[in-house]
Amino acid sequence: MDGSEAARHWTPDEFRRHGHEVVEWVAQYLETLEARPVVGDVEPGWVRAQLPPSPPEQPEDFGAVLADLDRVVTPALSHWQHPGWFAFFPTGASGPSVLADLVSSGLGVQGMLWSTSPAVTELETHVLDWMADLLGLPERFRSSGAGGGVIEDSASSATLCALLAARWRAAGDGPFDRLRVYTSGQAHSSIEKAVRVAGLHPDQLRTIDVDADHAARPDHLAELMAADRAAGLVPCFVVANLGTTSSTALDPVGALAEVAAEHGAWLHVDGAHAGAHLVLPELRWIADGLERADSFCMNPHKRLLTNFDCDCFWVADRRPLVAALSVLPEYLRNAASESGAVIDYRDWQIPLGRRFRALKLWFVIRAYGAEGLRRHVRHQTALAQDFAGRIAAHPRLELSAPHPLDLVCFHHVDGDGASEALLTRLNATDRVFLTHTRLDGRFVLRVSVGTQATEGRHVDELWALIDRLA
Amino acid sequence: MDGSEAARHWTPDEFRRHGHEVVEWVAQYLETLEARPVVGDVEPGWVRAQLPPSPPEQPEDFGAVLADLDRVVTPALSHWQHPGWFAFFPTGASGPSVLADLVSSGLGVQGMLWSTSPAVTELETHVLDWMADLLGLPERFRSSGAGGGVIEDSASSATLCALLAARWRAAGDGPFDRLRVYTSGQAHSSIEKAVRVAGLHPDQLRTIDVDADHAARPDHLAELMAADRAAGLVPCFVVANLGTTSSTALDPVGALAEVAAEHGAWLHVDGAHAGAHLVLPELRWIADGLERADSFCMNPHKRLLTNFDCDCFWVADRRPLVAALSVLPEYLRNAASESGAVIDYRDWQIPLGRRFRALKLWFVIRAYGAEGLRRHVRHQTALAQDFAGRIAAHPRLELSAPHPLDLVCFHHVDGDGASEALLTRLNATDRVFLTHTRLDGRFVLRVSVGTQATEGRHVDELWALIDRLA
Repeated sequence: MDGSEAARHWTPDEFRRHGHEVVEWVAQYLETLEARPVVGDVEPGWVRAQLPPSPPEQPEDFGAVLADLDRVVTPALSHWQHPGWFAFFPTGASGPSVLADLVSSGLGVQGMLWSTSPAVTELETHVLDWMADLLGLPERFRSSGAGGGVIEDSASSATLCALLAARWRAAGDGPFDRLRVYTSGQAHSSIEKAVRVAGLHPDQLRTIDVDADHAARPDHLAELMAADRAAGLVPCFVVANLGTTSSTALDPVGALAEVAAEHGAWLHVDGAHAGAHLVLPELRWIADGLERADSFCMNPHKRLLTNFDCDCFWVADRRPLVAALSVLPEYLRNAASESGAVIDYRDWQIPLGRRFRALKLWFVIRAYGAEGLRRHVRHQTALAQDFAGRIAAHPRLELSAPHPLDLVCFHHVDGDGASEALLTRLNATDRVFLTHTRLDGRFVLRVSVGTQATEGRHVDELWALIDRLA
Repeated sequence: MDGSEAARHWTPDEFRRHGHEVVEWVAQYLETLEARPVVGDVEPGWVRAQLPPSPPEQPEDFGAVLADLDRVVTPALSHWQHPGWFAFFPTGASGPSVLADLVSSGLGVQGMLWSTSPAVTELETHVLDWMADLLGLPERFRSSGAGGGVIEDSASSATLCALLAARWRAAGDGPFDRLRVYTSGQAHSSIEKAVRVAGLHPDQLRTIDVDADHAARPDHLAELMAADRAAGLVPCFVVANLGTTSSTALDPVGALAEVAAEHGAWLHVDGAHAGAHLVLPELRWIADGLERADSFCMNPHKRLLTNFDCDCFWVADRRPLVAALSVLPEYLRNAASESGAVIDYRDWQIPLGRRFRALKLWFVIRAYGAEGLRRHVRHQTALAQDFAGRIAAHPRLELSAPHPLDLVCFHHVDGDGASEALLTRLNATDRVFLTHTRLDGRFVLRVSVGTQATEGRHVDELWALIDRLA
């Protein structure tokens, strides 16, 4: 084997030079973002048609690679950071979070065990405690007691881990066929997915009826659970939706927790989007009763200026979580883990390996301060409230649901056809991008205010377009 | 609600300025890496003790944040990119991959659906086909037919997804109690973890005996499966380990595939680490029979210069995977998905959201070229082979297992005590870091050659230390 010649790697100085080029490229992207159509208009296959069918045999010049970002990539993006982006739930990608991720990538360390880089684990535990402060979370979720927090890639994964912990608490290694899971029909698709992943039959997922505001009804949960218990089944896991995806409907956490507790079921609170609003003391009522929950998650990558992926997940008792997810082979044994004095986050998640994601939260919290985070959420929530007021006053539009936070759902009084046509025309302007949902069988437009770049003038522009096209 | 004041975000120009500072910080980290101890020496709790107990109320100066990287973070890292890092399997973090991740973070787009950013999906499908070229993978794994590739965060997740697809193919929505899973006792811990996550009982995982080289024995698999079939059970999923974690033992893929096929079981090939060696035509024999596998994964974040997280996962038939993982709520419906002309990668993974990770592979493949990647793997594999030769010739050391690739396992002839003492003394030099495993009941040192920075002189230095301390 002729292995005499090493590959040619960049020197640190080449990294420095190209790094400056990429920073410049990103800065220019941000500077030109507002002038771009919000969503690139390409047909399926367009991107691949721009690319050579085979990988290059020889190294290419880095400048050619960067140039292709403009030629092939940016025309075919939906610009999630565009100030006219009101679709889905926007994702945060503030400067400090982006640069923290650069540090994480540059360090290239692994946080699967405490010992594989103590700073990765300890900074994570610490900023999760900081986040608990910022959100006013109950004491039980802090690392000082039996609970604690961890960063997952997404709320989907957090919910799955919560379900696995609940499953373990209820039935150990199984069988699981008598377990039952409960959430409303407005819950995020990740809950149904978690149930399937965890090996439960779709019939093991019960749907809690919702009230007129699309929030889960505790009385119906009580009914379902009592019937299941009477049938010899085991209520295992309840997901309370703190802000549903369709309309930010707020399930009553405390009342659901009370019912869950009566039957020994685990209560998980999915605050993927709305959980960030807990930075505002005046909105903490939305999670009343959270001190009775077994677990809670929220995504700084949605509302708190932190780039994807960053979901914060807390448990009141870490033992069932670790018991459900821990497998210890010889090659991972080490003195620190065996001392019991450290956390090994590999046992708090599905994958083994883990990036240094705590850096993002650390940078964001410090760069904005608690005050900056509150101001961000408060200001944009106020923009949404103002927008809702304009919808309410419009003769041809109607609000479709309560709008307690930063999402406003509305429809055209002429019915689904008119609502769909309005959505199509709005998105065709290239200045804004909205998505839709269905509520009470009705086609509904969603306006979710939340990118870092979205200011009052952008909401005004959206309003002007709606007023003209409705 | 007083929402009049918006938060203060960085302008693109501030991003530019701080971005240059961070690039400089990373470049200096890389320049000083070799002079640092490979592993920081801190006690549990040291990092947290350096940090204020509560988050700051007011924004902090970015310079203060960067300064804390040096004060709090780097002293408490295990430097995975250090040239003296021979532990676990090293992770790749080449300059091009790090900068591609910066682009990904800066764009801040989401690839859950094709329509949420077509470039994210199409570039991913395309570079996975490029990777299939580079690795000489069978035609069935390419996107042109029924199969195709996707990027998962890790091989753990890929294996879980493969199991879920297999579970669906064998039993739909369940029940799953008759299904059986097979792999050797040398398999990665993620396989046992996947079995538990998927709701199978630990007893549903059968252990295939290994031969003297720690490779799974197809005759024993045949025996296990026949016995299970005779007992009315359903052989569902077999994992062939293409390079075990302890010793890079190579399970015979073709022979295992033949047995699996006889019983209709899904064959997944876990090439997390060793799969990268397929870039070398002279090493493709290690995966003989791969054309009979149902799925395959390998981690560019291990051996192919791409920073974590980046696992490539291919399936021969994407239908069972998508069927197992697809849940479609109204708010994700869109014309492109319904046309059937596009891939929605959310249905190929556990979470819903996904980063733009294809950029990393694209940058790496283009910056190195196929030739550069081959040279990297070939050169460092040769270094490992050379190192193994020195161990073999040493009077007090013995090779513990075959060393077909870039990992060498060895022990001291005086027994476990001497081997453990040697490991402790080596790691105490601060110049190298090794981990251990157990093979045939024996305590064994592992030397895995593979960081970007590791050159011949570093292996020479390791050898000199071993020779002195053994």
